[in-house]
Amino acid sequence: MSGSYFIPLLFLLLSVTAEASFCSTKGIPLVRNISELPQSNYGRGGLSHITVAGSLLHGMKEVEVWLQTFAPGSRTPIHRHSCEEVFIVLKGSGVLYLASSSHEKYPGKPHEYSIFSNSTFHIPVNDVHQIWNTNKDEDLQVLVVISRPPVKVFIYEDWIMPHTAAKMKFPYYWHSSEFGWHTVHRKMSHAASRGSNVERENLI
Amino acid sequence: MSGSYFIPLLFLLLSVTAEASFCSTKGIPLVRNISELPQSNYGRGGLSHITVAGSLLHGMKEVEVWLQTFAPGSRTPIHRHSCEEVFIVLKGSGVLYLASSSHEKYPGKPHEYSIFSNSTFHIPVNDVHQIWNTNKDEDLQVLVVISRPPVKVFIYEDWIMPHTAAKMKFPYYWHSSEFGWHTVHRKMSHAASRGSNVERENLI
Repeated sequence: MSGSYFIPLLFLLLSVTAEASFCSTKGIPLVRNISELPQSNYGRGGLSHITVAGSLLHGMKEVEVWLQTFAPGSRTPIHRHSCEEVFIVLKGSGVLYLASSSHEKYPGKPHEYSIFSNSTFHIPVNDVHQIWNTNKDEDLQVLVVISRPPVKVFIYEDWIMPHTAAKMKFPYYWHSSEFGWHTVHRKMSHAASRGSNVERENLI
Repeated sequence: MSGSYFIPLLFLLLSVTAEASFCSTKGIPLVRNISELPQSNYGRGGLSHITVAGSLLHGMKEVEVWLQTFAPGSRTPIHRHSCEEVFIVLKGSGVLYLASSSHEKYPGKPHEYSIFSNSTFHIPVNDVHQIWNTNKDEDLQVLVVISRPPVKVFIYEDWIMPHTAAKMKFPYYWHSSEFGWHTVHRKMSHAASRGSNVERENLI
């Protein structure tokens, strides 16, 4: 390449890099209209999931925000994860089932908490839980905040399944489709090189 | 203390500890009605701040969520912090000023982004920014998510103030009043013992 082309090209490259710093993925604007963001049920009946701010889509490293809507009767799996999670209920009502018994061999009978529009709650790290839209007439819409994305989820068939038998789902439904395995795998290798976060993911 | 009193007392103590594991601060329920949470302007005109899920109030360690309302014309200081921050605009409109020049000696002229109801955006770590309710008729209401609480904020008088001259405000307004200096100081000592996070707080 001749020098006369190289300098303008370098400048162009630097400009693109500077713009890209606003958002890790080119073409996605910094300020986004949530109603225009892609939504899908990712193969889960009754769910609508929107990644509002995501690790793979938007370059988030420490937090991720989702907008999820559960149709009447639908629910999350019984699951745990080694990150913090905060819920803000925007619409509807339902039940949070929460078992704070990670020191036992299985979750056991969970506590039941009524959740309702304009309520908030958080899930302690590694506590097994399930959100259920028990309202027959109305959607349950929640804003979900998690730390340490992308989330690695351990799924239970019921509340007496041993922690050791819970099935790991990683990448999780929406992460699988966002960039595919390779990207997530690179992120995991990076996490592994950091060390401490990975250790904290081993509950048992 | 006689043995006959000791055993029931120990049991009572263990029960209280088990209950408290749902939320670090006794007396605060796990599921909270946001409209009943304490709000204040913390001495800042035009602001209403509610800590929805907080490090000091609710024992959050990795994320914190605030609900903030800015009266017409009110704004945040020009500031930076070494944590990730995600905004979700619930009501109103305004402007995000964002200077992505942390490698320079001062922020410089910021980019301007229109923000609007049902929009979302995030602030890259250490980028200097300001949120301004430029709408003369309507409140601007935002849900704010930050990582690595409690936040340590560096405040600028204007956009040409050198990064080295920005004034550190820690604990921040709402954290100062939540538990007082001693609690925050303990948290800082704990953070310092972790090492890496503290290093990342030094931008320059």
